[in-house]
Amino acid sequence: MTRLELFQHINKKNSYLCIGLDTDISKIPKHLHGMSDPVFEFNKQIIDATKEFCVAYKPNTAFYEALGPQGWESLRKTLDYIPKDCFTIADAKRGDIGNTSSLYAKAFFQMMNFDSITVAPYMGEDSVKPFLEFQDKWVILLIHTSNPGSVDFQQLETRDGKYVYEEVIFASQRWATADQMMYVVGATKADKIGTIRALAPDHFFLVPGVGAQGGDLEAVSKAGMNAQCGLLVNSSRAIIYASAGEDFAEAARKEAQKVQGEMSVFLHSFIL
Amino acid sequence: MTRLELFQHINKKNSYLCIGLDTDISKIPKHLHGMSDPVFEFNKQIIDATKEFCVAYKPNTAFYEALGPQGWESLRKTLDYIPKDCFTIADAKRGDIGNTSSLYAKAFFQMMNFDSITVAPYMGEDSVKPFLEFQDKWVILLIHTSNPGSVDFQQLETRDGKYVYEEVIFASQRWATADQMMYVVGATKADKIGTIRALAPDHFFLVPGVGAQGGDLEAVSKAGMNAQCGLLVNSSRAIIYASAGEDFAEAARKEAQKVQGEMSVFLHSFIL
Repeated sequence: MTRLELFQHINKKNSYLCIGLDTDISKIPKHLHGMSDPVFEFNKQIIDATKEFCVAYKPNTAFYEALGPQGWESLRKTLDYIPKDCFTIADAKRGDIGNTSSLYAKAFFQMMNFDSITVAPYMGEDSVKPFLEFQDKWVILLIHTSNPGSVDFQQLETRDGKYVYEEVIFASQRWATADQMMYVVGATKADKIGTIRALAPDHFFLVPGVGAQGGDLEAVSKAGMNAQCGLLVNSSRAIIYASAGEDFAEAARKEAQKVQGEMSVFLHSFIL
Repeated sequence: MTRLELFQHINKKNSYLCIGLDTDISKIPKHLHGMSDPVFEFNKQIIDATKEFCVAYKPNTAFYEALGPQGWESLRKTLDYIPKDCFTIADAKRGDIGNTSSLYAKAFFQMMNFDSITVAPYMGEDSVKPFLEFQDKWVILLIHTSNPGSVDFQQLETRDGKYVYEEVIFASQRWATADQMMYVVGATKADKIGTIRALAPDHFFLVPGVGAQGGDLEAVSKAGMNAQCGLLVNSSRAIIYASAGEDFAEAARKEAQKVQGEMSVFLHSFIL
């Protein structure tokens, strides 16, 4: 999917919601457990219920890896089930030496047909570039994450008076344009999103941390939007586990619709 | 496996060789391709041929993920086949927010029974700690990698006059002792290994980059050894692809034996 196509979907759906398919077998409703693939069945019903309110789905690979080979089967079936007008993100946080990153790219872009993958930057340029060699596929680079440990290294100050995460922004802009790269920018401090927006005016930001992690959607939207929206705001638990009962899909639908309604207002207030 | 047990295996085998099971389906001998699981068959024969000369095996997960669910099956069978006196390393370079890292830990330490996993430090303390909650399991933290991109962020200087990779060493020593944590330290510059040894006298270093990537085993051993050896030196391609023919296992055996012979000398010269 291209940047323009993504923006068109955002405009059409009045939404920049990404739903995190962090499907934990221990948390899905009991009545699904007897099915042959409960994880896929849960995802399928969540997707059916929410697809008109979101523009992206983001399965975190850890939830599938924890189930062994069967988990990878569930992930592949889930990906095949997601409608083509939704952007797909493998939240895998991979990154290795060049020839090895190429294999990860093959795993997520060819074996499975994800639009994008999250990548950890610690190993530098040659660990990221192999993911950029695929047409209309995206790297979503970790910049400033929403977890407490983001202070440990991302926010170290360098001798030039910059933060490490800023150095990652500067370097990565030499590797790819905003047509191939997005940034993970945590939402727990909205002012930080504004600072990062100033350094990367055109890039889409994937923003976790709204909802369960405590970020504020309005503040994030105001600080982070650009002329093409430039935001994919993720919500996982607050939507997919909105109910633990047989009505989980309907509850997820209501929650997604609620967030989409808010997003529609912010889109019209801030850019449209 | 405990640190003492690992040292005992090193002493017994006169070896600190780790063999990287980076098994690329496009590189394994043609006569294996007709088998039901050519990747596992290749690994099995490599393990049979080399197990007396090495103390560790390190499958890089990218090679298995690139094959889809079948690849994970091959990886699991491979792990089950590795003898119990060999330390096993999931070279996975994972790392995510706390509850997600817990799932990766479960995937590699419980679903599969790896002794250790490589972890990328960019997301900080709470992304690493969940891996430390398992008895006799190890985190092998990326510190200073052997690829060209290691200069991009690992070698940034901080305001305190330290490198980022040094900050990772200092911080991580507050999270775990040398009984639970090892460090990935690339071998392309042996003097760097000496510098890092001074900062982490007791930790085992997993050293990639000897062989195909150009590191010098003697220089690395001299600079990096401590009283309990403290080194696992990895070789992948130079051993497992020593021959592309039907004699691949025998060729791998000879190559592993050659390296073990050198290591035996260095062990006796430098520590025993």
